[in-house]
Amino acid sequence: MLDISPATCTATLSEQYHQVRNRTLELTQGLSVEDMMLQSMPDASPTKWHLAHTTWFFEQFILSRWVNHYRCFDPNFNFLFNSYYESVGERHPRPIRGLLSRPSHQQVLDYRTHVDRAIGRLAVDLPLEEDPELSERLIIGLHHEMQHQELILTDIKHALAQNTVMQPRLPPDPPGSQADRKFSTFSETLTTVGADEAGFSYDCERPRHRVFLERFELRNSPISNGEWLAFMADGGYHQSGHWLSDGWDLCQQNAWQAPLYWHHLDGEWHELTFWGYRPVNPHAPVCHISFYEADAFCRWAGWRLPTEFEWEYGAARASAPSQGHYAESGHWHPKAASGKGLQQFYGDVWEWTSSAYCAYPGFTPAQGALGEYNGKFMANQFVLRGGSCATARDQMRPSYRNFFYPHQRWQFSGVRPAR
Amino acid sequence: MLDISPATCTATLSEQYHQVRNRTLELTQGLSVEDMMLQSMPDASPTKWHLAHTTWFFEQFILSRWVNHYRCFDPNFNFLFNSYYESVGERHPRPIRGLLSRPSHQQVLDYRTHVDRAIGRLAVDLPLEEDPELSERLIIGLHHEMQHQELILTDIKHALAQNTVMQPRLPPDPPGSQADRKFSTFSETLTTVGADEAGFSYDCERPRHRVFLERFELRNSPISNGEWLAFMADGGYHQSGHWLSDGWDLCQQNAWQAPLYWHHLDGEWHELTFWGYRPVNPHAPVCHISFYEADAFCRWAGWRLPTEFEWEYGAARASAPSQGHYAESGHWHPKAASGKGLQQFYGDVWEWTSSAYCAYPGFTPAQGALGEYNGKFMANQFVLRGGSCATARDQMRPSYRNFFYPHQRWQFSGVRPAR
Amino acid sequence: MLDISPATCTATLSEQYHQVRNRTLELTQGLSVEDMMLQSMPDASPTKWHLAHTTWFFEQFILSRWVNHYRCFDPNFNFLFNSYYESVGERHPRPIRGLLSRPSHQQVLDYRTHVDRAIGRLAVDLPLEEDPELSERLIIGLHHEMQHQELILTDIKHALAQNTVMQPRLPPDPPGSQADRKFSTFSETLTTVGADEAGFSYDCERPRHRVFLERFELRNSPISNGEWLAFMADGGYHQSGHWLSDGWDLCQQNAWQAPLYWHHLDGEWHELTFWGYRPVNPHAPVCHISFYEADAFCRWAGWRLPTEFEWEYGAARASAPSQGHYAESGHWHPKAASGKGLQQFYGDVWEWTSSAYCAYPGFTPAQGALGEYNGKFMANQFVLRGGSCATARDQMRPSYRNFFYPHQRWQFSGVRPAR
Amino acid sequence: MLDISPATCTATLSEQYHQVRNRTLELTQGLSVEDMMLQSMPDASPTKWHLAHTTWFFEQFILSRWVNHYRCFDPNFNFLFNSYYESVGERHPRPIRGLLSRPSHQQVLDYRTHVDRAIGRLAVDLPLEEDPELSERLIIGLHHEMQHQELILTDIKHALAQNTVMQPRLPPDPPGSQADRKFSTFSETLTTVGADEAGFSYDCERPRHRVFLERFELRNSPISNGEWLAFMADGGYHQSGHWLSDGWDLCQQNAWQAPLYWHHLDGEWHELTFWGYRPVNPHAPVCHISFYEADAFCRWAGWRLPTEFEWEYGAARASAPSQGHYAESGHWHPKAASGKGLQQFYGDVWEWTSSAYCAYPGFTPAQGALGEYNGKFMANQFVLRGGSCATARDQMRPSYRNFFYPHQRWQFSGVRPAR
Repeated sequence: MLDISPATCTATLSEQYHQVRNRTLELTQGLSVEDMMLQSMPDASPTKWHLAHTTWFFEQFILSRWVNHYRCFDPNFNFLFNSYYESVGERHPRPIRGLLSRPSHQQVLDYRTHVDRAIGRLAVDLPLEEDPELSERLIIGLHHEMQHQELILTDIKHALAQNTVMQPRLPPDPPGSQADRKFSTFSETLTTVGADEAGFSYDCERPRHRVFLERFELRNSPISNGEWLAFMADGGYHQSGHWLSDGWDLCQQNAWQAPLYWHHLDGEWHELTFWGYRPVNPHAPVCHISFYEADAFCRWAGWRLPTEFEWEYGAARASAPSQGHYAESGHWHPKAASGKGLQQFYGDVWEWTSSAYCAYPGFTPAQGALGEYNGKFMANQFVLRGGSCATARDQMRPSYRNFFYPHQRWQFSGVRPAR
Repeated sequence: MLDISPATCTATLSEQYHQVRNRTLELTQGLSVEDMMLQSMPDASPTKWHLAHTTWFFEQFILSRWVNHYRCFDPNFNFLFNSYYESVGERHPRPIRGLLSRPSHQQVLDYRTHVDRAIGRLAVDLPLEEDPELSERLIIGLHHEMQHQELILTDIKHALAQNTVMQPRLPPDPPGSQADRKFSTFSETLTTVGADEAGFSYDCERPRHRVFLERFELRNSPISNGEWLAFMADGGYHQSGHWLSDGWDLCQQNAWQAPLYWHHLDGEWHELTFWGYRPVNPHAPVCHISFYEADAFCRWAGWRLPTEFEWEYGAARASAPSQGHYAESGHWHPKAASGKGLQQFYGDVWEWTSSAYCAYPGFTPAQGALGEYNGKFMANQFVLRGGSCATARDQMRPSYRNFFYPHQRWQFSGVRPAR
Repeated sequence: MLDISPATCTATLSEQYHQVRNRTLELTQGLSVEDMMLQSMPDASPTKWHLAHTTWFFEQFILSRWVNHYRCFDPNFNFLFNSYYESVGERHPRPIRGLLSRPSHQQVLDYRTHVDRAIGRLAVDLPLEEDPELSERLIIGLHHEMQHQELILTDIKHALAQNTVMQPRLPPDPPGSQADRKFSTFSETLTTVGADEAGFSYDCERPRHRVFLERFELRNSPISNGEWLAFMADGGYHQSGHWLSDGWDLCQQNAWQAPLYWHHLDGEWHELTFWGYRPVNPHAPVCHISFYEADAFCRWAGWRLPTEFEWEYGAARASAPSQGHYAESGHWHPKAASGKGLQQFYGDVWEWTSSAYCAYPGFTPAQGALGEYNGKFMANQFVLRGGSCATARDQMRPSYRNFFYPHQRWQFSGVRPAR
Repeated sequence: MLDISPATCTATLSEQYHQVRNRTLELTQGLSVEDMMLQSMPDASPTKWHLAHTTWFFEQFILSRWVNHYRCFDPNFNFLFNSYYESVGERHPRPIRGLLSRPSHQQVLDYRTHVDRAIGRLAVDLPLEEDPELSERLIIGLHHEMQHQELILTDIKHALAQNTVMQPRLPPDPPGSQADRKFSTFSETLTTVGADEAGFSYDCERPRHRVFLERFELRNSPISNGEWLAFMADGGYHQSGHWLSDGWDLCQQNAWQAPLYWHHLDGEWHELTFWGYRPVNPHAPVCHISFYEADAFCRWAGWRLPTEFEWEYGAARASAPSQGHYAESGHWHPKAASGKGLQQFYGDVWEWTSSAYCAYPGFTPAQGALGEYNGKFMANQFVLRGGSCATARDQMRPSYRNFFYPHQRWQFSGVRPAR
């Protein structure tokens, strides 16, 4: 298992680089060149684009600066594979990334090789750890690539889901045991949140600062599919009273009846997994729900969503990240946990919080184009905490702030209530 | 000046009722029956609809409950003039409120008279102050009506603004003197925010609770038109680096170049007032800006928006509400202030904060349909604090939380930076 | 009854002018100033706008040219009340004509008086008949005004229809007797179609020219509501096989189940009339159907729509215009006819033809701005022939070509099949 | 050169089948598997989809009926590759054909082989010519496939055009000589149009019938790029007076400045060809223009579009189809013609006519699902005559009626004026 935080890591940066980069390619095994072209909505990108964009990131932010006379692989790629960095220039429009048949997948693999070799040569010339700015950039690039590893999975899942007739039907998984549904209690406290200086963190997790928490309770485990079925059976998707106003409008416009990827087949609810339709496992955590659904469920149950700081405070007192289920350990879908007490904060499903994604007091974005990485998205999105089965385990840390729009459902997103 | 908080008010509730209701009609003086039909966007409503909806509020939430055998004025009105109370039944679609030629304006006035008389009889039968629930409802109804008084003004301004050729051109106002642009400093503190039990407040302002504030500074006055012109002159509307990502998209889609209602006429910036186009006064507070513009301005200036709690903490240490400019005192447009120190927190312009509108810890919505008043809007909106020239002065209080979507500009909204 | 064709008319042009202009105002009786503000879709316009636009037409095309130093009533009106004449300058956007609270209805009436007096003075100075170009323009203006009289009726019907709760419920009309459903046969022929020089016609009805017609049969009467109910009962709105592809898409998108303004109330189909909801009369001609519905009905019945030339050939051999039902004779809704043989070509309902609206061989548009009257609409629209109960009887002539888009339903449009 | 009309053809049907099928695959040479996935707009389809759909056509309309116990290649393909035949069942939504990464291109090739072998076996068992219905179906299938050969070219051109940065720049072609710009005159006549029984034709070309033509003149050659540049230089795209109303709206909304695929590069107009950007050849016929542009050009020039019958009458008196330029002879883009007199009616560019696509008198659609082939599209589209460089030469015949919406530009469409 890879640990790329400077403080505790035993592998060299160069070794880490190649591990992360190889992992990305491993994730695409089983996908055809045609699959890797798919873009099913503007929010998602083709696998091929992810492969190229993560490569461009190293070219743009490291090679073009630290390598003298760096030979750019193809000058068009800055236009094609820049995601959203306004300060780096014009970009190919995001909604039509699926129209990039050219460059071919093979050319993108060649591009990866070209850049990996250049990074390799750079590591020979200049031990990466010795230049703090370079190593910081490289580590950001690896975290960036891990984020895109997750998007490769969630995006291809969404894309293949559009092609309903080509999906196999699967038998049910063993359900596992029921999770601990109790709530743990926390007294009021003036606590400190955010990332400290040791270990990797994004700018938006800093600075570490104090917040006051009133007394609260937090569920020991995420909500399960079985509990979600009870919500559905009680008319949860049909009673405006549980819903935020914007959420209710969306629920009606889109005729939401169940989480994304749930299909009612032959009298039974199934969910789409990476391998086909499988009967819903009542003990596994519910996932692919929007913030609005998470919030409505809580109101229906008489509970509420936690703030991101309540979550962070709870997580610091709970089970370690290593206990969750991860794709890198062969768990490509959330699974039931069987322990007692606060658990399953990491892996399986991201957990929606009630906190709008915003700046911490004293927040300073990174300098230059990388300042666009987080800060400019601080409106209209909500914070999710933890990490899902699709997340790289090395990204897990209590202070990590993931963020999505409240209507989005294609991430492995679930809910852990507070009260 | 009316003070309708139970604690300090000298007028009876019945007297207050008639004062507020009459004030609403006074605001419509100068508008023709045709003007009062106008609806220029789904966010806004016709004056006539406001007149009827505020009346329906008293009928629905008071008369139908406290008056035995209450004779409803017209049973269709529950369908036509319910705004958004899902639990009260089906509603006329909001975007086509402008198609309600029937009932006529005169019928709506008759409706108001019918309800006012019924409230009058109720007050005779049952001294309003003696039934705590009734008096609480009535006071909510009056605050509700005051909120709609403000919307009558902002909505008709927007509607008449669409008819550009029928607007007169006006000479400039006397500019007044320049406001105090200094910042006041506040030390870190664990403070208490929100409404206490004395005086009126909405459910969303409660419960009073503790928050920790890091040291911060707050501008003594709102940003002026002159400062905004400097932002424009420096390319503020054309440089993505100042903007949140969603805001930049909107800015480009809508080709924003200036605040709403600003027009460049004969080589000079004018703004639309209630009486026509007037040259922009550089010393008056800028208004009709969106959250995105407020935020971009602050980033351009090296500052930031305050949180709503920073604002509340500062306001409690500043000038009293009575110092601002209000329509009810003849000030229908924001004006320059000339004092020193923290000032102009109330009146003139609402002030955008960086705080997403969300529930306070322990928030409990009101019971029944009135629980829909605030709680269900707690997503995607930002808190504005203070009050504008279009707000009733009796609504001013430090804990008041107004909220709008970050793209909205038709309120009298401005900005007071922090750093 | 007014006949404004130069050849046969006994009233002077000046008398005709005032008859037509007064008729327009008569049509607005019963409408409130608020009703006259309504615009319920971009295709329709407020009554007040029609009152002003028809007036502007005389000001723009006659007074500004034939009256020296003509004093324009208000220079803004050219912007506000130009409908679609690109060559006359910029225009107020059509979709927001409903936002013109100013000028007021009273000002528009004053505008009408101002222009009527100017035309009156012009008639004194220069007998209108003596200037051929002037008299031609004036007659066009009167026909233009009669067209807008029809639109006043169809547009206000559509607008008031949006306000469903304010409509009374009416008892059924006496059904009348069933119309003659036989077909009349016509042999193949080389015939001449279009308008001759005598009498008024629009440029698009000319030049008169020859067309060859194969043998055909034409229904003696329009399709009735009773026949339409049979189509509905047989699943006509649910079987793609009857429909044109574009029509089927629309039918599904809009969930068409019946003609426009039909509502199923208390187990029975009602239609909205100018006075409220009335049970559908099975013997009256069906109306408020789109071209797509007319076409689908014919295919379902094994018939087809006639071409406009088949219709014109048949109409010339049928009953006279005077036999139909017209609003000006108190018939504000289509009625059953009881005669035998080819009948009811005029009045009651417009009849969709299979002919796309296009130029006749040798078509020459009028010179100047009036050349925009017809020619520029010759794409994507279909020809309707005859005239409806809402049409002025003086507009009836065999060569008249009305035209609308195939999806439009708010005119009094019906269908007479061929085979 | 293949001639598949039963009357004159020397190859057996079975030979013709394999010629046409092979030609389809030949057209895809040079395209990668990724290119063949692309769908750039709902009007267009991926190459892979065309390959499968044309195969499905033979499976659905021939094999499933004439082969006992025919083993369907994959039952899902009826859902995936049915284009628009409502009577054959539900279909994959047209706008997301580009999301069909599965089946793979290789599976589609296997599907083609499977069906081709089944047709081969059928031909052995039952000489195809001996069953008139079977041979008729097969010939329709071949014409259908030829139509899709053209769409393969026009659709992939559109798709690759979206990826602007991956296009090479090419030197100009030799211009060739200027075409004959004279007009030929035709006297008035009662003529017969439409397809006779000999040779292949679609149902919409029949029955043959009489039409009367007034005297007219027809241009000897299509309009050239040079003439189009003159139209552009004279402000053709900026003067509403030349345009139909719907066309003018579109022209402004889309900011049309030139034909589709024209780009102004380095001070010179280029057009995109299958190989990259090439300077516009002033002598070649203009192509990729909409009906609206064709019509506006004619009005600017003082001319008009011909009716489809004028065109057909002229074409019958002009050069033979063999004289045009065709992709199958290596001409992948329209070229200048150098002869005198009426010419170039076939090949190079389709020619817009003023005729709305509608039914001929006595039109009877084919029975069954194939009745959906043409008839249901008879609204809102205009007839184009002739054939383009992308059309198979075997499809050329005077009576052929191609049809597209007036705004569509991605076909090789040009214009030959009349007057």
